[in-house]
Amino acid sequence: MKAVIVSRIDNRDALAFAGKVREVMEHAGCTTEFDHDTASALGKTGVSLAGTDADVIIIIGGDGTILRTIQGMGKPVPVLGINWGEVGFLADLEPPEALEFVRTLPHGFSVEERMRIALFRDETPLGVALNEALIVTTRPAKMLRFSIVVDGNTAEQFRADGLLISTPTGSTAYAMSAGGPIVDPRIQGFLLVPLAPYMLSSRPHLISENRRLEIRLESTKPANLVIDGQQTIDLGTSSTIRVNRSKTPALFVDVKRNFFEKVDKKLRNL
Amino acid sequence: MKAVIVSRIDNRDALAFAGKVREVMEHAGCTTEFDHDTASALGKTGVSLAGTDADVIIIIGGDGTILRTIQGMGKPVPVLGINWGEVGFLADLEPPEALEFVRTLPHGFSVEERMRIALFRDETPLGVALNEALIVTTRPAKMLRFSIVVDGNTAEQFRADGLLISTPTGSTAYAMSAGGPIVDPRIQGFLLVPLAPYMLSSRPHLISENRRLEIRLESTKPANLVIDGQQTIDLGTSSTIRVNRSKTPALFVDVKRNFFEKVDKKLRNL
Amino acid sequence: MKAVIVSRIDNRDALAFAGKVREVMEHAGCTTEFDHDTASALGKTGVSLAGTDADVIIIIGGDGTILRTIQGMGKPVPVLGINWGEVGFLADLEPPEALEFVRTLPHGFSVEERMRIALFRDETPLGVALNEALIVTTRPAKMLRFSIVVDGNTAEQFRADGLLISTPTGSTAYAMSAGGPIVDPRIQGFLLVPLAPYMLSSRPHLISENRRLEIRLESTKPANLVIDGQQTIDLGTSSTIRVNRSKTPALFVDVKRNFFEKVDKKLRNL
Amino acid sequence: MKAVIVSRIDNRDALAFAGKVREVMEHAGCTTEFDHDTASALGKTGVSLAGTDADVIIIIGGDGTILRTIQGMGKPVPVLGINWGEVGFLADLEPPEALEFVRTLPHGFSVEERMRIALFRDETPLGVALNEALIVTTRPAKMLRFSIVVDGNTAEQFRADGLLISTPTGSTAYAMSAGGPIVDPRIQGFLLVPLAPYMLSSRPHLISENRRLEIRLESTKPANLVIDGQQTIDLGTSSTIRVNRSKTPALFVDVKRNFFEKVDKKLRNL
Repeated sequence: MKAVIVSRIDNRDALAFAGKVREVMEHAGCTTEFDHDTASALGKTGVSLAGTDADVIIIIGGDGTILRTIQGMGKPVPVLGINWGEVGFLADLEPPEALEFVRTLPHGFSVEERMRIALFRDETPLGVALNEALIVTTRPAKMLRFSIVVDGNTAEQFRADGLLISTPTGSTAYAMSAGGPIVDPRIQGFLLVPLAPYMLSSRPHLISENRRLEIRLESTKPANLVIDGQQTIDLGTSSTIRVNRSKTPALFVDVKRNFFEKVDKKLRNL
Repeated sequence: MKAVIVSRIDNRDALAFAGKVREVMEHAGCTTEFDHDTASALGKTGVSLAGTDADVIIIIGGDGTILRTIQGMGKPVPVLGINWGEVGFLADLEPPEALEFVRTLPHGFSVEERMRIALFRDETPLGVALNEALIVTTRPAKMLRFSIVVDGNTAEQFRADGLLISTPTGSTAYAMSAGGPIVDPRIQGFLLVPLAPYMLSSRPHLISENRRLEIRLESTKPANLVIDGQQTIDLGTSSTIRVNRSKTPALFVDVKRNFFEKVDKKLRNL
Repeated sequence: MKAVIVSRIDNRDALAFAGKVREVMEHAGCTTEFDHDTASALGKTGVSLAGTDADVIIIIGGDGTILRTIQGMGKPVPVLGINWGEVGFLADLEPPEALEFVRTLPHGFSVEERMRIALFRDETPLGVALNEALIVTTRPAKMLRFSIVVDGNTAEQFRADGLLISTPTGSTAYAMSAGGPIVDPRIQGFLLVPLAPYMLSSRPHLISENRRLEIRLESTKPANLVIDGQQTIDLGTSSTIRVNRSKTPALFVDVKRNFFEKVDKKLRNL
Repeated sequence: MKAVIVSRIDNRDALAFAGKVREVMEHAGCTTEFDHDTASALGKTGVSLAGTDADVIIIIGGDGTILRTIQGMGKPVPVLGINWGEVGFLADLEPPEALEFVRTLPHGFSVEERMRIALFRDETPLGVALNEALIVTTRPAKMLRFSIVVDGNTAEQFRADGLLISTPTGSTAYAMSAGGPIVDPRIQGFLLVPLAPYMLSSRPHLISENRRLEIRLESTKPANLVIDGQQTIDLGTSSTIRVNRSKTPALFVDVKRNFFEKVDKKLRNL
């Protein structure tokens, strides 16, 4: 079994832990490498995530590190997150239990698929989001004007600071802060949550992934598209964004935890 | 084609309209009957819904009439609702357009399935809900204590006045009043929304229909189970309610309206 | 200094602690009595709260005990709550610190006033609430129809399961569960929070205590008025309730705690 | 009586209406002037708002025009808003009724005071807000870390996109979009509403104007302070903002409308 190990590089303890993970995995019979950034922070040589043929990627970090790693992959490889961040919804293991678990990986593991969202303007791909895409005003306190179009019909029109298009996976991230429900990742749908809508009747919507979904933006102020809180794209003042289910889901090593139990614990400690 | 026509019986205009619907359908070549209650309000003889072999049931009334009619059916028959109520999310036609539409029914129609929820205590069936089941305190201002158990794990525990277990169809009914999101009826899931939870971090949850879902109720005060706002069952002070997807969905004549567009219009006029 | 000591009587430890409080206060030079119920639970003779001329009433219990004690008073006497309940927003001391504090009472203490709400139907007083008055349906899942009338003008009309009329003190109790804001007890106003309103645009309202406030209830279903979760009054199907600031506030011994810091701690542990 | 007339200058009809208002007022015996901007848009000469000794300022425009005009005044002068905007909570008259009303102004009018918020960093004044001050991240999707400090005690700590410090007047503006309650302008208090707080238990707070209120901002990302949606101040990454009631309230000509009735109508049409 081949593994790549990725660590956040701004934390010496996380980097040291990445070293331990490697030792344990090598000892268990895996071939392991660090990715370029982690290797370079450790003064070593690493491999590229874009072209990797690894069987699994182990990530030591918070949700940001995991999101960036998945964005950087060429083809989808199962990831296993070891939480070295503040909350860590995407990381399934805490450090104390992680070494024991990674030792078992060469015996085989099952994989959980998580849907992602693909965004297009006309036929141009804008990006793929695992948590959420945010269309947001670039000038705080200046609203944008949105239309949500479902199967060709205008479902809702409103003014707001922004609009989150979230996956079920992202329902415990930004969408939750904005007042959205907790959605089971086994459900396939688009969760739409407006940011500070100037309309009392606005509600989060959950829309089936087999609908044709478009977000129309009309505004005199420029807007940005922010993907997974990482990548920012200038949209100008007027745009139609098409929202699809991505053909390539994100893959996670299934650590056999109950999703809702995990969420409940994490949310209470926010 | 055989049709049964059902009307709310507390409104003379609705009953008169039921007569017109019958006339138009007979003229279009259908065999039509009234159900017992409607017939009796019109001084005629009707048929039982429990044993009907009709191809379609036309309902003139509000959501209450439609929910009661579906509860009263023996086997699922497609229904077509003509709105004679205050809001009418379940009725797809308004009276002015209805006569034109029913005339086309003998040429064939497509059917939309809507999932329902089946509730059990131990192995005893408690009922089937198209909109929602509500577990609620019988003493206003006295909270119940709930545990939500998903796949055998406790996902959340809280005290509240009640808990709504809603279908996507019910997301525009009681669940919406209690702060839930709007959920596409194409999504298959259980929407859980607490009533006045005494916990700031409580949020609506949407849970996939392929999970094992149980609601555990522990309380010193007696609780009721209310199904679709129609049927009340005494639960006593302690109970475990199992929630399944019902094997028999509700069937609706598909009038080719966009769900979200309809919801948006209706919600704005609340 | 004269003190009356009140304990919840369903908890032996609370009753034993009441005995200790009495000992400490007598030793510090106070004249102390138990109220009838506490005394009788301890096999002793007590005094009536209705006619007491005590300088202070010490209460060992939760919010329910404190609310009942204040309801039972003839004229307002400052109370000091020692928390022996689940959350205890009205009790300012926890048991470990309480004995030290009560010892200092004979040296003098300052008093904090908390506004209460007086409710009337026509000119008949219905009761006085320290936390909140709730107008609520007696049939779960059947909505009532409300109008909020401010200075003679209809400010809002909606259907809902119920309507909370809360004081700022009550903003951390039932009103919070129903989605209301946290309101500083130094603010003088009526906080209105609907329970499960069937209108998306409904919002909590905070109305100045110098407005004339009326709640008009029109419904085909009977309603109850519940005062501080303790006292239930049958309202029938139609009623106009006048809401005033009560001339007699509740009085609390000021233990010099920051209200918001206390609220923040308690809320996080719900 | 001396009046200054201000119009939004991006709308020819509003400017034309400003001319009519002037005619009517002159005819009723007032001395009237346009302010510089309005006059210049009409090809005339105007007066400065900063040094005016007018008895009343008539404003034709939306809330933005009214907020800017009040910001531009030297000393507080009563304003009367004629709504030429989208919603217009601050404008008390609609154009059809306005000419009749301004004709009566020389006979005298009463004035309504609305509290404003003064903001300071150390002893440096940052600005005065009639609706709200917003502390907000300059990088969408990157949270700031806030502490709310009341009378020297930390009342709440959380991460969020931003924090609104609103007046009761502003409770129907941005604060409402962010989920805040409707607050009677007769109440004197600071309404705090976080934008997308990453904490489920976060709630709007209403804090008495006689508290010492400080907002502490600690963050690695730069933040802005936006006053009434008009004026933007760079706060850097770390700041303590002191919030006071301003000594100079805003003054409005009292048109004897019921606040809540007006709000209800406007909100339903959003």
